[in-house]
Amino acid sequence: MENEFKIIDGGICAAKGFKASGTYCGIKKPAYENPTRTHKNDICLYVSDRLCNTACVYTTNKVKGAPIIVTKANLEKSGGKAIAVIANSKNANTCNADGVEKANKMCELVANELNIPSEQVVVASTGVIGQVLPIEPIMSAVPKLVNELDYGKNNDAATAIMTTDTVKKEYAVEFEIDGKKCHLGGMAKGSGMIHPNMATTLNFITTDCAISTDMLQNALNEIVKITYNCLSIDGDTSTNDMVCLMANGLAENDEITCEGETYGIFKSALYEVMANLTRMLAKDGEGATKLIECIVAGAQTQDIAITVAKSVVCSSLFKAAIFGEDANWGRILCAVGYADAEFDINKVDVDIKSDMGIISVCKNGAGIEFSEEEASQVLSSDEIYVLINLNDGEASATAWGCDLTYDYVKINGDYRT
Amino acid sequence: MENEFKIIDGGICAAKGFKASGTYCGIKKPAYENPTRTHKNDICLYVSDRLCNTACVYTTNKVKGAPIIVTKANLEKSGGKAIAVIANSKNANTCNADGVEKANKMCELVANELNIPSEQVVVASTGVIGQVLPIEPIMSAVPKLVNELDYGKNNDAATAIMTTDTVKKEYAVEFEIDGKKCHLGGMAKGSGMIHPNMATTLNFITTDCAISTDMLQNALNEIVKITYNCLSIDGDTSTNDMVCLMANGLAENDEITCEGETYGIFKSALYEVMANLTRMLAKDGEGATKLIECIVAGAQTQDIAITVAKSVVCSSLFKAAIFGEDANWGRILCAVGYADAEFDINKVDVDIKSDMGIISVCKNGAGIEFSEEEASQVLSSDEIYVLINLNDGEASATAWGCDLTYDYVKINGDYRT
Repeated sequence: MENEFKIIDGGICAAKGFKASGTYCGIKKPAYENPTRTHKNDICLYVSDRLCNTACVYTTNKVKGAPIIVTKANLEKSGGKAIAVIANSKNANTCNADGVEKANKMCELVANELNIPSEQVVVASTGVIGQVLPIEPIMSAVPKLVNELDYGKNNDAATAIMTTDTVKKEYAVEFEIDGKKCHLGGMAKGSGMIHPNMATTLNFITTDCAISTDMLQNALNEIVKITYNCLSIDGDTSTNDMVCLMANGLAENDEITCEGETYGIFKSALYEVMANLTRMLAKDGEGATKLIECIVAGAQTQDIAITVAKSVVCSSLFKAAIFGEDANWGRILCAVGYADAEFDINKVDVDIKSDMGIISVCKNGAGIEFSEEEASQVLSSDEIYVLINLNDGEASATAWGCDLTYDYVKINGDYRT
Repeated sequence: MENEFKIIDGGICAAKGFKASGTYCGIKKPAYENPTRTHKNDICLYVSDRLCNTACVYTTNKVKGAPIIVTKANLEKSGGKAIAVIANSKNANTCNADGVEKANKMCELVANELNIPSEQVVVASTGVIGQVLPIEPIMSAVPKLVNELDYGKNNDAATAIMTTDTVKKEYAVEFEIDGKKCHLGGMAKGSGMIHPNMATTLNFITTDCAISTDMLQNALNEIVKITYNCLSIDGDTSTNDMVCLMANGLAENDEITCEGETYGIFKSALYEVMANLTRMLAKDGEGATKLIECIVAGAQTQDIAITVAKSVVCSSLFKAAIFGEDANWGRILCAVGYADAEFDINKVDVDIKSDMGIISVCKNGAGIEFSEEEASQVLSSDEIYVLINLNDGEASATAWGCDLTYDYVKINGDYRT
């Protein structure tokens, strides 16, 4: 993943031929009832000028939001083709008796307005589980959303999928294939119930690169494993996790249909966007004050590196210590030690790094002396890197998380009201 | 586990022939440096009048405290026999280059004073990982501990193993085998880094019942699975987890050497003590204001019931909701859904109960209407029961946990200092 990409603006509208819109329809409380709400939109739509090859991954939770069930069925019917995506926040439309009916209704509303088959619409919802989704505000909103679609309205969409997020998450890159300029960009939604497992929280990615549905799905599976699936805010795997990746081919490169150089470039671009969105999600984790990035090197396999790195970013004790800026490295080693993977604990080295410096805290599985003063300085940064070397092989992986704070407890002690 | 037992006082001294003592030796900070410390002891000893058949289970963490390594080796050498246990708090003697040497030294000090072989001594430590254990205070303390041993000093020992615990944990029962009165009691230490896996945090249990080492180990393995291993405070499996169960036979029943009625009674008594200690550990979890007990019934197997019950008590989001007294049952169903076990999510029922009432929140995997007022009343209690029926079989299990609070973050943001 060494390629250099040009970082560009535009989120889901960075790729040619994708229009978006977002609005407030009344699923979130109105501003006068919730004056602290910084983002007002609660529903969005985006549409490609041309039918897209579409790949998705979904939550592994047995409880699946109705939108997941409907999107899956639609893409099966359409043979992995989609043209439009509708998504709402504040209500997950999950564990509701009429959930599938309502999710289908959302697709039909969009299909009717756009004059396309309903199975070419992807639907997603995020928010509270188990509250009936009000369909009337959505019925009123869809014509407006269609009417307001525009190539530059990625921001309206990116803010509409926010729940407890404090910032919107968008990232996009430009790259070249066959001498053609391609674009790939996306938007993501945090910021709690995040512990993706073979899928992730709501993530929408678009590209104008021409690539077959099969290769698109392969690339997505491969990259999701080392990006979103290496992210944990709180250990809770959401019921509505989904990544949707759409490719409309408007860049007019030769369609990528097999492995090879161009597929490699595409995957690198996808990694660049997904890794950066993952990082943004971690940094804006509920209540978070610090990003934690754990980089495990020297593993025998990538799976071992992933398991160890995730174990560290999932440790509540370590997360609380980072909030307190306490270099309690014993908790890192403890979390390394209970990771379900094979390696020799007596060869493990641990460093802690930030823009304020670096300290070595553990060598060959045992503590080494360090200056508490230097440690405090390193930990005063808002981006903390835990560097672990298993000294056992060549594979590596990164996992992303955040500190555990009073505000996490506050936000989640009273989320529904 | 339907037997009735007489609950008695005495903790580890409830069984005949067990003397204990505890003192302050200087591993914890002195009271004038830490005026909020409610328990002053930091080291304890207990000794049986007669050599004991001894069973232990240990942490599955790859990082193992030096005391775990030394105890394991001692019991192998002695053929599962022990007569004395020494334990300290505040320092885990883990990840130290000289850890095993110091743990052995602790055993030798006790062995010399008692004139017994060193391999008949069990050693345990709990506290901060990766700080060198000061041996001098322990060298001074051991003669004093031996000198002060008494049959009624369980309290001195139970307070010496406390770290962030706010209350000591002791439980004991009396029962009858072959017309002989038997006693079984124990003490346990919480209250963070608790997510036992095939073992648990420090737990010491003694009995005067006569039972072979093999049957003692079998009983311990079986009961630990459905008690301590169904407990989670924060998802972090400690490096120093240990349960030590000693039987000195002074009740003079016919030694239990195989399965059968008397073994069944013994196991029931062990369950009674270990389940109640588990409950105490959960209730005194770091920063906890509420006990959460999740009872899963109607499972095809006990393992499925355990997996689902543990998944619920481990959910940070649900734990925070309980702290906020918010009946956010969607988070329960979410945690049920990501449990790694086979069952039909569409048959799941969920009730929430306390001494203030009971509400049904979910039927057949979908939400049902309930009164928010009644829900608030139920959740105002400090012991919350989540009753889940998978409607899929006859097996059941209980898991114990606690709410996630500001104080958990506070305690763990700055634990070392």
